[in-house]
Amino acid sequence: MKKEEAIKQGLALVNGSTIAMLGTIDAEGYPNIRALIKVENEDLRRIWFSTNTSSRKVPQLKNNPKTCVYFVDFDEWMGLTLVGKMEILQDSEARQRIWHEGDEKYYPLGVDDPDFSVLRFTAQWGRLYHALTHTTFEL
Amino acid sequence: MKKEEAIKQGLALVNGSTIAMLGTIDAEGYPNIRALIKVENEDLRRIWFSTNTSSRKVPQLKNNPKTCVYFVDFDEWMGLTLVGKMEILQDSEARQRIWHEGDEKYYPLGVDDPDFSVLRFTAQWGRLYHALTHTTFEL
Repeated sequence: MKKEEAIKQGLALVNGSTIAMLGTIDAEGYPNIRALIKVENEDLRRIWFSTNTSSRKVPQLKNNPKTCVYFVDFDEWMGLTLVGKMEILQDSEARQRIWHEGDEKYYPLGVDDPDFSVLRFTAQWGRLYHALTHTTFEL
Repeated sequence: MKKEEAIKQGLALVNGSTIAMLGTIDAEGYPNIRALIKVENEDLRRIWFSTNTSSRKVPQLKNNPKTCVYFVDFDEWMGLTLVGKMEILQDSEARQRIWHEGDEKYYPLGVDDPDFSVLRFTAQWGRLYHALTHTTFEL
């Protein structure tokens, strides 16, 4: 598959996904994976999430920002691996940007809740798996 | 949730899953995630997969056996993170153990195909996420 086609298919997958798998590296050097709600994406290059500041992933990311974000469509046998770095943001602009009605469910004190942190992922490269073939591309 | 209950729910998730997400660490120290067919599991402690020997994950695992295996049920908002180490096996006993009819689709030369490798994961600990709560347990 050509890289342009892989990026196009990968973008359709990300645009249609509400959940991503986030891979971080823990204090003992092991990868840790968990599912996370995708808040927003700017093409494939940048993806926004939120998290509880008290969650395990925050110290992991502070210690090691190397991250993988994975999207999957089991029905289509399609998966997209994005590899890059994650920033943890707590400024007002970032908070306002990704806050949605109902987020009080996770952050009871609202948009200024100290337990609300913004995660901004920037991809360096990606790899699309579809129909038994892989295509790798820079971002 | 009690650990015994988390292990029970996690085991039901794994037993009912045909696909897992596998997290490895690449040569640059970044986590890499991809979906993989689960061939067999012995409780939560040991999980068997197969892979093409020529795939990227084989040199990654040879270089660094630290691995995460993740199972997810999006409908139930349930996810299970298992963290441990992966072994790469190519002996006849391991090959025979996990070979299934139809695997020629992936390994055209059959059970002795040099491009057929067995992956045996042994978990050290796990973490179940369900209904907004986490439970961590040793294995």
